[in-house]
Amino acid sequence: MTNAGQSGYEARQLIRAGRHTGQTSGMAPGFVQANLAIIPAAQANDFLRFCVLNPKPCPLIGHSEPGDWRLPALGRDIDIRTDLPSYRVWRDGKIATETDDITSYWRDDLVAFLLGCSFSFEAPLLEAGLTLHHHELGTDVPVYRTSIPTAQAGPFHGPMVVSMRSFKPADAIRAVQITSRMPGVHGAPVHIGLPESIGIQDLDRPDYGSPVPVPAGELPVFWACGITPQAVVEAAGLEFCITHTPAHMLVTDLRIADLSVL
Amino acid sequence: MTNAGQSGYEARQLIRAGRHTGQTSGMAPGFVQANLAIIPAAQANDFLRFCVLNPKPCPLIGHSEPGDWRLPALGRDIDIRTDLPSYRVWRDGKIATETDDITSYWRDDLVAFLLGCSFSFEAPLLEAGLTLHHHELGTDVPVYRTSIPTAQAGPFHGPMVVSMRSFKPADAIRAVQITSRMPGVHGAPVHIGLPESIGIQDLDRPDYGSPVPVPAGELPVFWACGITPQAVVEAAGLEFCITHTPAHMLVTDLRIADLSVL
Repeated sequence: MTNAGQSGYEARQLIRAGRHTGQTSGMAPGFVQANLAIIPAAQANDFLRFCVLNPKPCPLIGHSEPGDWRLPALGRDIDIRTDLPSYRVWRDGKIATETDDITSYWRDDLVAFLLGCSFSFEAPLLEAGLTLHHHELGTDVPVYRTSIPTAQAGPFHGPMVVSMRSFKPADAIRAVQITSRMPGVHGAPVHIGLPESIGIQDLDRPDYGSPVPVPAGELPVFWACGITPQAVVEAAGLEFCITHTPAHMLVTDLRIADLSVL
Repeated sequence: MTNAGQSGYEARQLIRAGRHTGQTSGMAPGFVQANLAIIPAAQANDFLRFCVLNPKPCPLIGHSEPGDWRLPALGRDIDIRTDLPSYRVWRDGKIATETDDITSYWRDDLVAFLLGCSFSFEAPLLEAGLTLHHHELGTDVPVYRTSIPTAQAGPFHGPMVVSMRSFKPADAIRAVQITSRMPGVHGAPVHIGLPESIGIQDLDRPDYGSPVPVPAGELPVFWACGITPQAVVEAAGLEFCITHTPAHMLVTDLRIADLSVL
């Protein structure tokens, strides 16, 4: 991997300086990457409850004090306003703009929530010898809205969003075992094999990411996805909030092993 | 459960006395039940190697000294000649007879091998709230020969035999997690979802046990099965050996927790 040996801190410095502008997949191997939701203090307690009630799509790995852009528990010198390659600014439940710097949007009442990301469990899957087809194709993982409801907290409600990777059945079983050890980054899959039973009508038409064909003899396996908060923010019609742009994550100083059990 | 509180020792005493003559499913809840293969000393080392090479179908939990019918490590006062409700005596790879007492067949060169049994992992599945359809129907679990080869050791070779239980997908994922903790009783499933890819053409026609329909919205999940040695004995054409009759097990004094990890 070209980024072998890169630390989370080094990855963030590249991003902050504008020297890395794309997806963060493959940066700082072994370090945890995180989904971002920045919520005004008025709704922040409800969002915290939403995460606690829905730990599979929203595994909370850290949050800031209101108005504070630092996250010392997640990494040295983090500035959440500049350290992701791309942000979405939302108004009234719709994407108002995408930007690489949210300093001008910052307010004293904003709370940053960081949620575990499936990038962190892909490394152990690859180390176990499993094949990830979206890596082979050089595309994003396909992501779908489902008919699985999240548990509501205040204004936050909506469908669970899932990512899909397909495997031969014996490898799917290995993938369940491996990701079960990592509840901090979505944990075990939420579904396997029968997409129509969770409201996915056409695997070839993902709601986010890129389509990735499922080869004959393989089963689609679905993990709860950190894009769920974006579907929820949309459903809530929140007046104002900020998220990461999908696949453009905060790279932290946490080791993947720090979020693993067993 | 009507046998609640029954110990392994109590179950064996009932069987030895001829007061329990049927299957052992449901006896002595919480105690490990075991598959039996009694092999002449001339082939016993090869059979031991076969078990070591194939731990998923043949998880070895104990074996006797040649000619010794006792198994003190597995239970108080076990007499392997009388303590199972039904045995199969094999000659030249074929079942010669079934009997409830093999004392008259015993020889000084026989070695008893005891292998973990899926009955032991059904209790934790039920405790987790999962439904086992063959229990609802009051039948045996369906068991199939597959196209998955075992690793050969001396004369011992042949297809892996698997048992099938179907679940809704989320419950199938739970079943993988729960049985992964129990490598001593077959461990995680070997297959899920696509029976034809392991050589099973028709789920309604099991090779052993009873057919159990797979409801719409469920996936068939397959575990390596302790009947594998019987298929292997048949393929080897062994001059003489003795096994249990399927579903008629040795009930041991081991607790299921003794064979669990994590």
